Amino acid sequence: MTTITATLQQFKQHLADLARLSQAAALLNWDLETGMPRKGAAARAEALGLLSGEIFTRFVSPQTAEALAALTAPGVTLDATDAALVRVTRRDYDKSQAIPPALVREIATVAGQAQPAWEQARHDNTFAPFVPYLTRLLALKCEVADIVGHRGNRYDALLDDYEPGLTAAALIPLIADLRRELVPLVDAIIDRQQSQPAPAVPAVPVEAQRALALALLDLLHFDSDAGRLDASAHPFSITIAPGDHRVTTRFDVADFRSSFFSVLHECGHALYELGIPAALQLTPLADGASMAIHESQSRFWENVVGRSRPFLAFVLPLLQRHCPALAAWSADDLFRSANSVRRSLIRTEADEVTYNLHVMLRFELENELLGGRLAVTDLPAAWNDRCRALLGCTPASDREGVLQDVHWAHGSFGYFPSYMLGNLYAAQLTDALRRDLPDFDTLLARGDTQAPLAWLRDRVHRHGRMLEPHELMLRATGSAPDSRHFLAYLRSKFLGDARS
Amino acid sequence: MTTITATLQQFKQHLADLARLSQAAALLNWDLETGMPRKGAAARAEALGLLSGEIFTRFVSPQTAEALAALTAPGVTLDATDAALVRVTRRDYDKSQAIPPALVREIATVAGQAQPAWEQARHDNTFAPFVPYLTRLLALKCEVADIVGHRGNRYDALLDDYEPGLTAAALIPLIADLRRELVPLVDAIIDRQQSQPAPAVPAVPVEAQRALALALLDLLHFDSDAGRLDASAHPFSITIAPGDHRVTTRFDVADFRSSFFSVLHECGHALYELGIPAALQLTPLADGASMAIHESQSRFWENVVGRSRPFLAFVLPLLQRHCPALAAWSADDLFRSANSVRRSLIRTEADEVTYNLHVMLRFELENELLGGRLAVTDLPAAWNDRCRALLGCTPASDREGVLQDVHWAHGSFGYFPSYMLGNLYAAQLTDALRRDLPDFDTLLARGDTQAPLAWLRDRVHRHGRMLEPHELMLRATGSAPDSRHFLAYLRSKFLGDARS
Repeated sequence: MTTITATLQQFKQHLADLARLSQAAALLNWDLETGMPRKGAAARAEALGLLSGEIFTRFVSPQTAEALAALTAPGVTLDATDAALVRVTRRDYDKSQAIPPALVREIATVAGQAQPAWEQARHDNTFAPFVPYLTRLLALKCEVADIVGHRGNRYDALLDDYEPGLTAAALIPLIADLRRELVPLVDAIIDRQQSQPAPAVPAVPVEAQRALALALLDLLHFDSDAGRLDASAHPFSITIAPGDHRVTTRFDVADFRSSFFSVLHECGHALYELGIPAALQLTPLADGASMAIHESQSRFWENVVGRSRPFLAFVLPLLQRHCPALAAWSADDLFRSANSVRRSLIRTEADEVTYNLHVMLRFELENELLGGRLAVTDLPAAWNDRCRALLGCTPASDREGVLQDVHWAHGSFGYFPSYMLGNLYAAQLTDALRRDLPDFDTLLARGDTQAPLAWLRDRVHRHGRMLEPHELMLRATGSAPDSRHFLAYLRSKFLGDARS
Repeated sequence: MTTITATLQQFKQHLADLARLSQAAALLNWDLETGMPRKGAAARAEALGLLSGEIFTRFVSPQTAEALAALTAPGVTLDATDAALVRVTRRDYDKSQAIPPALVREIATVAGQAQPAWEQARHDNTFAPFVPYLTRLLALKCEVADIVGHRGNRYDALLDDYEPGLTAAALIPLIADLRRELVPLVDAIIDRQQSQPAPAVPAVPVEAQRALALALLDLLHFDSDAGRLDASAHPFSITIAPGDHRVTTRFDVADFRSSFFSVLHECGHALYELGIPAALQLTPLADGASMAIHESQSRFWENVVGRSRPFLAFVLPLLQRHCPALAAWSADDLFRSANSVRRSLIRTEADEVTYNLHVMLRFELENELLGGRLAVTDLPAAWNDRCRALLGCTPASDREGVLQDVHWAHGSFGYFPSYMLGNLYAAQLTDALRRDLPDFDTLLARGDTQAPLAWLRDRVHRHGRMLEPHELMLRATGSAPDSRHFLAYLRSKFLGDARS
């Protein structure tokens, strides 16, 4: 047993060093998107390429393999946490060791160059200069998918990175079902909202929005000594290290709602990682169970809480204090403004009813790109066609279309379905939470988010990556993931069925 | 020759990877001092410890030794740049390989903990909680000095890191000479200034000071696409990577001059590194010739230019645009305010006449600490005694005394003399510059800093670390470094001897 104890200790030290190198990479990435001077881009891409390669090489080294072999040898017994650590690390190792380090380094380098190229292309509103970067990244990710292996659909190999065990074949009928229900629901809701249009949104200066954002973070119990808020082209949340969780937002003077809700969203991600216990830190268990589970946390705070009638009524005076231009708004005005359903172009600003249609669009295009059935140069036209079919509107420019998301510039193909699943999971978790906290609405009406946060900490956060996503949902909610909770939530909220 | 070409190429690739890891460490350090959340401190110290250890281990690896051996073998001829690269790397290697990697890692870890401890101690105005950190760092640096080797004075081993070849024995008489001249000069200048006191300094809001700082950076041709300005407890300048040079400042509402001059100072450091040619980047030659040469650049822009009568007269309207509270000031008011000589406590805010006395104080204390003739717990009292003797005033608190500088929290013992030498070198370089640019004052009077910057680029910046500091001064000015240029500069400026 002494040997196993020593092996475990060395294994954890090895993983902790890997986590520390990842902290450096995380900071380089955060800085790249928040404040890095433009001319530092080339060097940053090279530095990130080197670091990613180093992390990868160390992870797939014999040191990892030998420790895993020793810790899974017959007769070795481990406690639940250590067993989960070995299981999760084994899974990551098996996937990773198949990929040559040079390929990993090249992807990081190209992604580091693609990010500023995407920003420039988006700024210039022209897709063409981004084509070579996206083409290269796509080819590299196809290579990865083929190396990792799949049963005929490259998409599955990439999706598995975000949603362990999920396949495109399982997603396609789920999406078809959801689409069949959603499209008429969008019609019904838009029809109903026409009689009560939301008020016009006044301009709100950036500084007022920043102060409001900080107040919202405070209200959600985001620890300002363990995090910070910055501006970036695309809002995101990133954990640099234990005790250092950063969120970003994009301030739009013409529409304060953009930052208001993205701050709640990113804070939801940060609260998840803030809730992971110290015992799991500096190991692969210190992460979300899956991207969809992560997204369920951001959607819970952004939509279930943030766009609810009681929370918005509570928050109105705070909002008015920071934004005097909203002085004449009633709680009902704010609710309508926060929940206006539109056929719109930008995913990150879509309402919660049409949002999943944006995801379906991306899933279909990614699946075709990876399958070689769609060329990168044909992407803008395909995007616009699909947008019309799903959402009933067409981008006037690539900035509002194919160039709106940063994901592909990061090489993150297969990520988008997690957003959709996150919406479904958030609704399902909320139904379970309401069983334990029947006064949920009353709590929100007085801005008390402590009890819901404690519930999520207990059911979701504290497990880190110890439970598989399916198992986590089953334990937390009592049933396997499905879409009926989400559809019931939408019908209740927007059409007044049952709960209103 | 093909073999040597290949060896050189591999060697440069190896050094470039080291430079990239150093870029990550630089960003972690920058972030630590600018925006890192407080609770991230422990993890950051560990991450920096790991990275420093990794950089160190790779640098002292057989890969470096074998390349150096091959490139210095009989019959190998290299061009001037490659020869300098091999010489400088050999020197660094010989010093570094003597030190065990575990010691390097420990120093980085302790320094990472000492920095927030120093900030807290300074905030709380109490030295005691900082004692264990400083004691540990001092012991570790003594260990380094003894390992590197010296002829009886540990100070020399550490000083050599900043000023190659210089010794305490050479500094002591230089300091004694300078002190002998300076002390009566301070008396004479203070006496003379009493008849014309500077005007009271009005409060200036932080945002106005920030806008002014950005305008000053612009005036000095600091490329805002290749750098940024932030606030930190102690102003500093850091190169993250080629194309990414960052300066920080500390805004004091009650005294805009603090940030005004520290921005010029830090910008001078950044301009030096911005002026290092692309061909030297990602090698050990992409650095200043020595810390004193570096400091000569910051002092040139801060004092020789920034505190000169013609530049201040030019900059007054700009200053008044950003700071309306200064509307009534004349150019003479500004000159007097910028050049007021006082017996003061804070080094970074000392005038250029008394500044070197602050350095002498630190040199003496460091020399005694390293020699074991002074205990860390006795440091505050020793500081206060020495301050009275040299500067004629006594700190009322540790914050104004022994806790004012961050250097010891970084483990940077032996660094302070470079500040003094920087002042001497700046004056000597200026005398050479005036020979080539006799209309220097006229240029400054119209805010034209292009020609002096081009002169410095040619004589100093473009060489990076290719020339030894002594050689660089000799080539740039025609004479070996001395203190007479500096003393003549002070007499001329403050007592109106010769040039006024």
